[in-house]
Amino acid sequence: MTLTGQLLIGSRTVTGNGEIIHAINPATNTPLAPDYPGGDASHVDQACALASAAFDSFREIAPAERALFLECIANEIEALGDQLIERAVAESGLPLARIQGERGRTCQQLRLFATVLRKGEWLDVRIDPALPQRQPMPRSDLRQRQVPLGPVVVFGASNFPLAFSVAGGDTASAFAAGCPVIVKAHSAHPGTSELVGHAIARAVKNCGLPEGVFSLLYGSGREVGTALVSDPRIKAVGFTGSRSGGLALSKAAQARRDPIPVYAEMSSINPVLLFPSALQTRAEALAQGFVTSLTQGAGQFCTNPGLIIAQQGPDLERFISSAGELIKRIPTQTMLTPGIFHAYQHGVSQLKANPKAQLIAAGLSSEAPNQCQAHLFSTSAEDFLRDENLQAEVFGSASLLVQCRDAEEVRKVCEHLEGQLTATLHLDADDLPLAQTLLPTLERKAGRLLVNGWPTGVEVCEAMVHGGPFPATSDVRSTSVGTAAIQRFLRPVCYQDFPDDLLPTALRHDNPMHLRRLLDGQREA
Amino acid sequence: MTLTGQLLIGSRTVTGNGEIIHAINPATNTPLAPDYPGGDASHVDQACALASAAFDSFREIAPAERALFLECIANEIEALGDQLIERAVAESGLPLARIQGERGRTCQQLRLFATVLRKGEWLDVRIDPALPQRQPMPRSDLRQRQVPLGPVVVFGASNFPLAFSVAGGDTASAFAAGCPVIVKAHSAHPGTSELVGHAIARAVKNCGLPEGVFSLLYGSGREVGTALVSDPRIKAVGFTGSRSGGLALSKAAQARRDPIPVYAEMSSINPVLLFPSALQTRAEALAQGFVTSLTQGAGQFCTNPGLIIAQQGPDLERFISSAGELIKRIPTQTMLTPGIFHAYQHGVSQLKANPKAQLIAAGLSSEAPNQCQAHLFSTSAEDFLRDENLQAEVFGSASLLVQCRDAEEVRKVCEHLEGQLTATLHLDADDLPLAQTLLPTLERKAGRLLVNGWPTGVEVCEAMVHGGPFPATSDVRSTSVGTAAIQRFLRPVCYQDFPDDLLPTALRHDNPMHLRRLLDGQREA
Repeated sequence: MTLTGQLLIGSRTVTGNGEIIHAINPATNTPLAPDYPGGDASHVDQACALASAAFDSFREIAPAERALFLECIANEIEALGDQLIERAVAESGLPLARIQGERGRTCQQLRLFATVLRKGEWLDVRIDPALPQRQPMPRSDLRQRQVPLGPVVVFGASNFPLAFSVAGGDTASAFAAGCPVIVKAHSAHPGTSELVGHAIARAVKNCGLPEGVFSLLYGSGREVGTALVSDPRIKAVGFTGSRSGGLALSKAAQARRDPIPVYAEMSSINPVLLFPSALQTRAEALAQGFVTSLTQGAGQFCTNPGLIIAQQGPDLERFISSAGELIKRIPTQTMLTPGIFHAYQHGVSQLKANPKAQLIAAGLSSEAPNQCQAHLFSTSAEDFLRDENLQAEVFGSASLLVQCRDAEEVRKVCEHLEGQLTATLHLDADDLPLAQTLLPTLERKAGRLLVNGWPTGVEVCEAMVHGGPFPATSDVRSTSVGTAAIQRFLRPVCYQDFPDDLLPTALRHDNPMHLRRLLDGQREA
Repeated sequence: MTLTGQLLIGSRTVTGNGEIIHAINPATNTPLAPDYPGGDASHVDQACALASAAFDSFREIAPAERALFLECIANEIEALGDQLIERAVAESGLPLARIQGERGRTCQQLRLFATVLRKGEWLDVRIDPALPQRQPMPRSDLRQRQVPLGPVVVFGASNFPLAFSVAGGDTASAFAAGCPVIVKAHSAHPGTSELVGHAIARAVKNCGLPEGVFSLLYGSGREVGTALVSDPRIKAVGFTGSRSGGLALSKAAQARRDPIPVYAEMSSINPVLLFPSALQTRAEALAQGFVTSLTQGAGQFCTNPGLIIAQQGPDLERFISSAGELIKRIPTQTMLTPGIFHAYQHGVSQLKANPKAQLIAAGLSSEAPNQCQAHLFSTSAEDFLRDENLQAEVFGSASLLVQCRDAEEVRKVCEHLEGQLTATLHLDADDLPLAQTLLPTLERKAGRLLVNGWPTGVEVCEAMVHGGPFPATSDVRSTSVGTAAIQRFLRPVCYQDFPDDLLPTALRHDNPMHLRRLLDGQREA
């Protein structure tokens, strides 16, 4: 298809009248056609009106039909073929193989939610049958199911133009729950967004769904996003991005007459603990694994290992020396946008200027535009505990090693951490007792704990948690990756003494959806 | 036991140094001994420090042990005997039978959460085993469980001195989840709170739990409550009370460096729809049921039927006439506190002064202190839609009938409503088609929908939802009554590639807790 630069408001394409967004190829700093004029308040209003009108019918179609819709989106995305891959590469500077993999992940994610829908556990059906003879008071017939919250606004992320953007995890889980979605495209990849947006719009049409199930808006600055979050017809928000962006959206959501849930995934430095015995037996292998994880994709992952915590000593020196040697040979990589590149440069220069941080090594440099040069710094636990700036996320291939004098300092550093998406433990059998004592702290700090792996690479599955205490996310009770993400967009409703004809299908007496209900306190087989 | 007026900070009793709270017998307006001096910032700090210190051990004791703890609390409450009943009656003005019933409900609730703990579904264990051979990338072993959020602050409610107070639903569900609890007692019933608080403290001791699992603070005004909600060691808040109180706590929680969940149950007028055929066949019986529900317990229920919606006509006139006659014979009832009485008087006088509201009938009057006189008002749908004041909750036995010209006006009134705890439909078979068209709207507005019943009386069971969209609660995704209330205090954590020895018991390979896990996407039998 030919890119038009137009907004998608339900089934209509509309040319915006706001400030123009230009996609930029970060590898060359050249703008990419076409122009994407942003939307305004009237476009927000139209998209919200359509989403609101579509909600009651979209939420009550059979879950199996919504499953078909998700699968249809995946098919339509695949049918975009090379055009999608090429545009995403051009807009993001990411390697071809990475974008191909990300497309696979995006489509697999949609299909995974289709299987979740068909299984029906998400409905969490609970039935307490009437007890008319109970003394002193009879019990009514009470039935509970989950219903969707309402129209959801999704903000595309810069670093995953497919998997966390227009048809990414937030959209897939919101659709699965039965919520219409309005996407505010990330301004770094409007062309990729337009292509995927049209794929969704075709799926909406092919599945005979109301057009308001999906809209796609562009907008530079925060005007369109804030208007969306503030609109009374919007009932939840999904966001992946910066701490300041997430906090601004949370604030707008709280300022509403009726505050709504905001699921903002924001900031994490993902501590990696190297335990003594593991360091002793394989300091060099750990250095290799670390540098690979740190520099993959120019370090532009929410789960990038930005903090290493270990006890001082000759084994740690071996790790430092190996990691330093490896980093010095890492070529630069193109970052996603000039803005992200400048933020990275700023973060690195802050560390360089901080007398409490010592540079261990830097990667190769380059004169090409927007190139991420890897950096590894070191500090003492004492300084880390004293200087809040050392805990700030530097988005990109930069990491800080915190050297501790003993296990007690390791514990103190862990206890001092803000909330994290992940915490990683590298350990051998001899390290288990020490690891055991740190686990309660780490469980309080992070949504995912790993042993002898690296935090980058987030599996889309039933057990994944991509979430964590503030500021990792704005809502510690949730995950934005994996099937449990659907729960973010649901709420319980109870039906008391309803005649069978009036009950939603999932709650009817003869259990037409063959659900394993919680019936009178017992789970059905 | 002798009431002392002292705070309970873990196992220590401490005399507060703040403004003194006097319980008042609302039936006589006489103060009740002893004095309850409020706590200050240092007491808040001590209670939070103990709760924080207790958290890691309390959350990891076996769920079956926490179940014993809950049952022990119930036993200790029952062992308080008549002293508890007498004090609660004196402090609340509620009838003896009501308080006896509420004690039964409170203890049943604790024991129900014990059964939930033993069943283990709340852990929501999900396991995706490793797939080392998967192409192009192997899959790690991923395991998810729910862990508690951390120390919780619970605010006692005025209208349920037992079931929504010190050992009420918020406390029971937070304990069940594994969260230490600090209760800020409601100033209307400090003696009841002290008795129940000591019952919990004895259970803590008898079960060998760390003392910080429970503390009980008093405080007039909002100082102690705000300090608790703002303390960084507190991770969630449960509250039942006024809209202004709930909003103030939500604001304090959002102003923290790390915002935390607030579960505030605030304000609901609980619309009751009388459908045409039901009105035709049983207007008088509906009037009888309505007046009974409206005036029970002086109408001091969150689910009190404060709004009746029906179409004009001779059948509605029969309802009005019957309800009016019944109300005129209703004696006054003592309200919970002088403050609640004055707020009720104010709300009623606002309606009396509103030219858009007509008084249908008032109950008997009385010169005794703090007496609630029942009131029924009427307005047109047109006026209701135009005047926001008519939608305000009047806590007590006051209700407003909204007369609609036709079914379309009924729909408009429903669509215009704020969020509610309940919505009730009185209907006959002939009304089903009309009811069906209204259901989507009502599902968006309320947490519980009832057919041919009355909203007062909230069953504590698996399927109950006592929650709803703002302003009914501050978090539409939750219920504060029923077993699903435990979910408010949990968050997911994922364990990647953990050796079995390091895994929490619930996630170990041999499934020692015999849980029905979600294993590789399939629910175990």
